[in-house]
Amino acid sequence: MTDRVRISFTPNDREVRVPSGVSVFDAASWHGIAIDSTCGGHGTCRKCKVRIDGPVEVSTSDPRAFSPDELDAGWRLACLAKANEDLAVEVPPLVTRPKAAMVGVGRQVILRPAVQKRCVTLTEPTLADQQSDVERLTAALDDLELTVDLRVVRNLPKALRDNDFTVTAVVVDDRLIDVEPGDTSEERYGIAFDLGTTTVVATLLDLSTGTPAAVRSMLNRQQPFGADVITRISATMLDPEALGRLTTAAHETLATLAGEVCEEAGVDPLRVYEVALAGNATMVQLALGIDPEPLGVAPFVMATRTLPRVHATDLGVPVHPGAPAYTFPALGAYVGGDIVSGMLASGMDRDKRLRLFVDVGTNCEIVLGDGRQLLATAAPAGPAFEGAAIRCGMRAADGAIEVVKITEEDVRLQVIGDVEPRGLCGSGLVDAVAELVAIGLLDSSGRLMATDAATEKFPTLAARLREVNGERVFMLHEPDIYLSQRDVRELQFAKAAIATGWKLLVEELGVSEENIQQVLLAGSFGSYLSPANAVRIGLVPKISVLRIVSAGNVAGEGAKMTLLSMRERTGAAALLEEVRYVELSDRPDFNDRFIEQLAFPG
Amino acid sequence: MTDRVRISFTPNDREVRVPSGVSVFDAASWHGIAIDSTCGGHGTCRKCKVRIDGPVEVSTSDPRAFSPDELDAGWRLACLAKANEDLAVEVPPLVTRPKAAMVGVGRQVILRPAVQKRCVTLTEPTLADQQSDVERLTAALDDLELTVDLRVVRNLPKALRDNDFTVTAVVVDDRLIDVEPGDTSEERYGIAFDLGTTTVVATLLDLSTGTPAAVRSMLNRQQPFGADVITRISATMLDPEALGRLTTAAHETLATLAGEVCEEAGVDPLRVYEVALAGNATMVQLALGIDPEPLGVAPFVMATRTLPRVHATDLGVPVHPGAPAYTFPALGAYVGGDIVSGMLASGMDRDKRLRLFVDVGTNCEIVLGDGRQLLATAAPAGPAFEGAAIRCGMRAADGAIEVVKITEEDVRLQVIGDVEPRGLCGSGLVDAVAELVAIGLLDSSGRLMATDAATEKFPTLAARLREVNGERVFMLHEPDIYLSQRDVRELQFAKAAIATGWKLLVEELGVSEENIQQVLLAGSFGSYLSPANAVRIGLVPKISVLRIVSAGNVAGEGAKMTLLSMRERTGAAALLEEVRYVELSDRPDFNDRFIEQLAFPG
Repeated sequence: MTDRVRISFTPNDREVRVPSGVSVFDAASWHGIAIDSTCGGHGTCRKCKVRIDGPVEVSTSDPRAFSPDELDAGWRLACLAKANEDLAVEVPPLVTRPKAAMVGVGRQVILRPAVQKRCVTLTEPTLADQQSDVERLTAALDDLELTVDLRVVRNLPKALRDNDFTVTAVVVDDRLIDVEPGDTSEERYGIAFDLGTTTVVATLLDLSTGTPAAVRSMLNRQQPFGADVITRISATMLDPEALGRLTTAAHETLATLAGEVCEEAGVDPLRVYEVALAGNATMVQLALGIDPEPLGVAPFVMATRTLPRVHATDLGVPVHPGAPAYTFPALGAYVGGDIVSGMLASGMDRDKRLRLFVDVGTNCEIVLGDGRQLLATAAPAGPAFEGAAIRCGMRAADGAIEVVKITEEDVRLQVIGDVEPRGLCGSGLVDAVAELVAIGLLDSSGRLMATDAATEKFPTLAARLREVNGERVFMLHEPDIYLSQRDVRELQFAKAAIATGWKLLVEELGVSEENIQQVLLAGSFGSYLSPANAVRIGLVPKISVLRIVSAGNVAGEGAKMTLLSMRERTGAAALLEEVRYVELSDRPDFNDRFIEQLAFPG
Repeated sequence: MTDRVRISFTPNDREVRVPSGVSVFDAASWHGIAIDSTCGGHGTCRKCKVRIDGPVEVSTSDPRAFSPDELDAGWRLACLAKANEDLAVEVPPLVTRPKAAMVGVGRQVILRPAVQKRCVTLTEPTLADQQSDVERLTAALDDLELTVDLRVVRNLPKALRDNDFTVTAVVVDDRLIDVEPGDTSEERYGIAFDLGTTTVVATLLDLSTGTPAAVRSMLNRQQPFGADVITRISATMLDPEALGRLTTAAHETLATLAGEVCEEAGVDPLRVYEVALAGNATMVQLALGIDPEPLGVAPFVMATRTLPRVHATDLGVPVHPGAPAYTFPALGAYVGGDIVSGMLASGMDRDKRLRLFVDVGTNCEIVLGDGRQLLATAAPAGPAFEGAAIRCGMRAADGAIEVVKITEEDVRLQVIGDVEPRGLCGSGLVDAVAELVAIGLLDSSGRLMATDAATEKFPTLAARLREVNGERVFMLHEPDIYLSQRDVRELQFAKAAIATGWKLLVEELGVSEENIQQVLLAGSFGSYLSPANAVRIGLVPKISVLRIVSAGNVAGEGAKMTLLSMRERTGAAALLEEVRYVELSDRPDFNDRFIEQLAFPG
């Protein structure tokens, strides 16, 4: 029954929900909770010690890390502790300053942030040594080739003389953005933003240690302009002032989150020297005030694949005034920087296995790679997975049915927040359909069984087959939460679009889908999807469910990686060259292929 | 009597005052009036035809350029026409678009402005060609390695689609700063600013032709904070808000002039894509809001010798919002970017002759070079040349005595504006002292002759020797315009400081002052100084007056050159390496040398 489990972490006091079977370390890492580790979660460093309340098996490494008493008390290595049931996890204070941080899908990122701080004490000028202040400072940092912001020059004379020529230089990449009094070299932060169409997440990272200091999320304030990117683009086409308002709404969202994470961690926003932003092409263009209209109409053209130098202020984020904003390159109008970020976080560029990356949403981004070639495409899945266009659909919030189990005798529901069901979210929809297909109440063409036949074959369930407003439905919860025949059709359209996408990539790469070694389900929806049911409805290739992995919020993880490591930025830039974008909308065979995929697999 | 002459130019309707003997071409060029030329003023291209009212000799080249009737009508080649008396000059409309422009002291600048415009027509995107807008545009400009301003990205989608993909790219150096509808490639302008402590001059340049479109000057609005740089620096030390106000005053001055030159030429300020600024270190730091305090106290340290990338907006100049501002590197706190600009304009870096460059002012900058080595220094001349600290001193404005001729019989004065004299400006002061020394009424130690001796030797003049408020004076104009004994001392201090400076440079370079082949007197004061009298008082080395040249506003000319030619910027940057700065204030022998220079040459 437990396809996903809850883990509550102390002292962070956060409860997270993750797919059953995930390691405690990964669960913490995905949600920005730091656990000591130097090996990157491979069970060798034995630093990721946690005390767990709840049933977790003792791994082969645990006895070498803990005494029998400690094992009895629940101490385990987090990277080897699988969460198969709800757990309470106590995380000890960090004892090591990792030189590397675990980010993304098991990615170990060696710390080499763009943000550097150097405390220097300069010799004071004399008539015999009239070097200018800037020259004097840059000579002390001569291993760096720096350009200096005018803002720094303005204040440098006073900063040096007020502090006896001992100051801390704040360098981001090749720019000197500030000079602070005395030694502040330990205090350097960055904020990683995952700017989703629906939800925006901010992670405040301590760049000296690579650990998250705070994480917050909120709904994108652009919501009133429409639920998806197309309605927001349309808004800018109908009202010349809408672009400005959408930009402001994005800025307000990012600024609110930035304020919250800084407050939560007790960090002065002026100590945040860089931000990173992952978002789809429309979200990024809107946030920067770039006219999005050509993204919304054929031939779907971006303003630019690689943005020019952008600052946090361009995004309305009130941190250090000289803080740059790292933005990801994008592959196309519908395979944006968020996907590049996700590919980075999931190692799509360096893993040699044949892997399929699927970010399920209104627009579904698909990447297939085998370590030699990478292909990407976008499939227009429509809003079914968001709960829209579904009769009793709703977003994954309290009251949403997120898990459905159907046997010949019974229907069992799992509801977010453990409250009375109010509707059906995307994962519940997939579950309901898959389970009905599995028992045969829904045939492979997607038609609900006739009532007569059902009464004969499924005497217990048949009463749930009703007619509501002239449409056949399957009642999930009395009196009015049901799955309708048309809901099934909506899901078929959505999953067919996605399946057509990855099948075409499989063909383009010249491989067989049976050989796919891993399917990564990305995005918040992907995390909640049951792998078995994703296979049942044909959303993903028919491979072992063990090979179907929820990758979590990989876009946000990629953004964190770029803040922590210049090398990862190079990786992101390289993806622009390495990935071949395959456009589906101009393929003459797309419609035929799409129709072939409408049915559920036999 | 006529040490300087007036030339009135039509149709520009400008009257200029230049040292007698200057060519009409140079006089025009210094004042930003364009005359056709392709040879650079060397009398070979015969394009600089003008019609002159007034006595000008026929040069050897004129008969080859004009018919006898034309010569009778006053037609002359401007570069060979020496202005020895007041003239009226009619300048024909330009017929050639020079590929080179004459700027500075006879410098021919090949046009290669940083501002480029390219009209391009792009192929429209299709589903088979989804290149982003930026990629599509930069591919059409692939001979340039461009970085693109975010502002351009914001508007590019609309700019392309509203104009059928035909736009004009505006490039400044390596930056794409705008994309304009249709073909605007002919319209490109820049403004060169000479930001003086007293006077600020703006020249609007047509960058397509290299010709000035308008010139305006005004008093620096920082004047209320003090007449010289030291009082303005002091203001910032006494009042924490003064720096902000000084910066605002500089911005207002520059903005006013920018508005005026654009209005005069009928040029849209948005078509001004770059500005260049020459000014001393204090003026530049104040204009950019950089704390100037360390410039004003020993050891006299600049914030930076080379400024970071600056924009016109940082200077408060309301032109194109993406317009960069070129600023000159500086050699030291008192040999600033204005002097580097002047050295560029006067070719100090490439002329093989032994030349001395003297910019006379409150702070006097001195450069000595022989084509192999360049030495520079600054001498604290004090305010005498500005008319300050002089009993009847005044700035060179209407009513100022600017020329004084004294014979044993008579005193003759030339007054600016031909009005009743109100005071004595710097050139008049130098003249008065030099003439009195020449006839012997002032001895070489600087003492006015005793009245008894004077009555005997100079019966006509002796009556002018009076006592005013207990001080001996020489009356120049009844009842109250005179030269006092103390005024003579002030001038002695000023000229001694300058002479000490260049004498030390002569020694450092290991040459003899007799071998100096040219002395360039720079700055507005330098233009009005009588070379003969400058020699007489020992302000400049004792060489033929023909070798003492008024160089005019060379700082402004250098700024124009950098707008017209990227190559000249390289030259300016190279000067930073090539020139050795010699600090006078820490030389133990400075005071002894200074005292030696107080006397007038025998």
